[in-house]
Amino acid sequence: MIHRVTTVRSRIEVTYTLPATSRRAAAALARAIALEQTAEMPEETVPRRIAPLVVGRVARVTRNGTRRWRVALSYEPEVAGGELPQLLNLLFGNVSLLDGIRVEELTLPPAVLKRFPGPRFGIAGLRRIAGVTERRPLLCAAAKPVGLTPVELAAICERFARGGVDIVKDDHSLSDQRWAPFRERVMRCQEGVARANAATGGHTAYFPQVSAPVDQLEERLAVVREAGCRGVLLAPMLVGLDTVRSLAERSGLAILGHPSFAGPYFGRRRGIAPAVLLGQIFRLIGSDGVIFPNPGGRFPWPVQVCLAVVERLRGPLGPIAPAMPVAGGGVDAGRVRYWMRLYGPDIIYLIGSSFYRQRDLEDAARRGVALLRAGHLTREARGA
Amino acid sequence: MIHRVTTVRSRIEVTYTLPATSRRAAAALARAIALEQTAEMPEETVPRRIAPLVVGRVARVTRNGTRRWRVALSYEPEVAGGELPQLLNLLFGNVSLLDGIRVEELTLPPAVLKRFPGPRFGIAGLRRIAGVTERRPLLCAAAKPVGLTPVELAAICERFARGGVDIVKDDHSLSDQRWAPFRERVMRCQEGVARANAATGGHTAYFPQVSAPVDQLEERLAVVREAGCRGVLLAPMLVGLDTVRSLAERSGLAILGHPSFAGPYFGRRRGIAPAVLLGQIFRLIGSDGVIFPNPGGRFPWPVQVCLAVVERLRGPLGPIAPAMPVAGGGVDAGRVRYWMRLYGPDIIYLIGSSFYRQRDLEDAARRGVALLRAGHLTREARGA
Repeated sequence: MIHRVTTVRSRIEVTYTLPATSRRAAAALARAIALEQTAEMPEETVPRRIAPLVVGRVARVTRNGTRRWRVALSYEPEVAGGELPQLLNLLFGNVSLLDGIRVEELTLPPAVLKRFPGPRFGIAGLRRIAGVTERRPLLCAAAKPVGLTPVELAAICERFARGGVDIVKDDHSLSDQRWAPFRERVMRCQEGVARANAATGGHTAYFPQVSAPVDQLEERLAVVREAGCRGVLLAPMLVGLDTVRSLAERSGLAILGHPSFAGPYFGRRRGIAPAVLLGQIFRLIGSDGVIFPNPGGRFPWPVQVCLAVVERLRGPLGPIAPAMPVAGGGVDAGRVRYWMRLYGPDIIYLIGSSFYRQRDLEDAARRGVALLRAGHLTREARGA
Repeated sequence: MIHRVTTVRSRIEVTYTLPATSRRAAAALARAIALEQTAEMPEETVPRRIAPLVVGRVARVTRNGTRRWRVALSYEPEVAGGELPQLLNLLFGNVSLLDGIRVEELTLPPAVLKRFPGPRFGIAGLRRIAGVTERRPLLCAAAKPVGLTPVELAAICERFARGGVDIVKDDHSLSDQRWAPFRERVMRCQEGVARANAATGGHTAYFPQVSAPVDQLEERLAVVREAGCRGVLLAPMLVGLDTVRSLAERSGLAILGHPSFAGPYFGRRRGIAPAVLLGQIFRLIGSDGVIFPNPGGRFPWPVQVCLAVVERLRGPLGPIAPAMPVAGGGVDAGRVRYWMRLYGPDIIYLIGSSFYRQRDLEDAARRGVALLRAGHLTREARGA
């Protein structure tokens, strides 16, 4: 019993679900995972001195539906050595190549958590950047499509800002295309937003997309800072999870994490549960906000999966600050009232197509913000 | 007809398989993908001037089994702008979040191919580094497990080198753990290999594992060069695909790409075909050798999937040099003769557990190399 407590507190614990026809087979597969992820050699060939140090341990095996089992393994943190690439390797390196195995839960001990930056701004910081003092959800709009000129994109940003959205971000496909080279686009768009803010007295923030080749990241971030932007959009699976971790530690900019290219991890019977990859790992590496595909949009995520992501982003995680969930992927402005009841005030609604369908972007944005304010006031009146 | 030819030559073409109950539904989903991956807004809201420039085009829709369809889409290369993160985004960014869609084929036009380094050493270069003049497969062994000291790991490297393996690589879980700090491990292991080479007159190369935090990569590569190593092991999904691309362009070291953490992409009805991700993208970013899980080992890949990977690594790809396939994941030294007939001479066999089970590593390695030489001579005698 004492051993269990020590294990949970000081070791990395990973829960996997896996296919097996019996408890015995499930336990055998769990032991195979414990070896594969650490010593990566047959049990009998692991030097006797090493095995108790490095080989993972099977803590629990429980049934999880028909022919599925849930196994909890614990690993010695030093195997990951406080490095993100090795932590990912330990969590799901080689066993990601086996069919039907899924990472369901991840528990990191304090000694590992403290090696990661987590959100530098987080929920409170994003509110500060967008100048939102009420405890209401934030509204984010996206400037698009790729192919427009910097002047055209800036005009869109300006209209959204005049309508009072809290954050305008670039679409994640805007980078450095010839139609709108990076520097000119960022400068123009920020000017457009600043012009709108000056006219309305608002505080809209503009977050450029910077998922660029790694050797151009510093230069692009310098442009972003020069323009006076306070945050950026980054897709961790496009630029590398550890690249985002490194930028979060030293860029001084807020980061919205985008799930582009992460989809293959989200199989029902393979990959990594969204609550772990988006809710914990994206947060751990320093995303201040994390975009997830909200139900009812273009991507078919069940509401309980999204709630689990939201919970992991905002819930306790040792010394790591909470991150802002960002509901995207086709949020209908007309249904925001429904989502507000579900998610509460600490969330960002990223509205794209629904605004563009309304043609008058400024008016669409204005009505969107009014809805969030009204919902907030209703909640306040109810004493929520 | 002229239009089709132009399209194929100058545009990026991606073939996806997807679920649909009719041709009409498949075509509609294909159009939705074409929009999602580019303009990312409803068709009717894309500015009329922009649509023909940036929105993907559906080239072909063909049946692919029961309720599965194969659709070929073409994209304007400038949408990716010659940047790897945006190329990945265009290929499978948001649609990776949809169920049941898989990237089956990727054809890049010359203008895109020339933006990527490809293997700097490739098949010929790895032979040169390992001093192998015969046209036989190479043998690679792995130093492990994590938890050993630098002296113990060096002893293993030395024994493999004395046995004559062509390359000794670190296990992909060796990084900078307190049991064997990076610098000391690399120096000792390289010394061990050099000692063996001096004794036998051999040319075994030692490739350290460097999938490190991105801000420590330069320092680690400097250690690798200082030690006199000519190549490294890198797991692109752990450090970022574009990080490997950048290192391939400027490190001057040969790169073995490891598939750790890439498994979720290899679903049968989701993700990216291994021939595309390992065979084309890993090669495009500059992997000189690419490790894949060989059939009959610990990972259940069908032989035709592996053959497709091998074919894509070695086959023509514009100006990009061929890369060496590395069959791993539990290759049985006793079955190498079988695989040699299948794969031919341009391949590396990565043998781990099978050697460790034999206890005498030097002898096991010696017999492994003898097998490859004999197989080669047999082929020569047959006029192969």
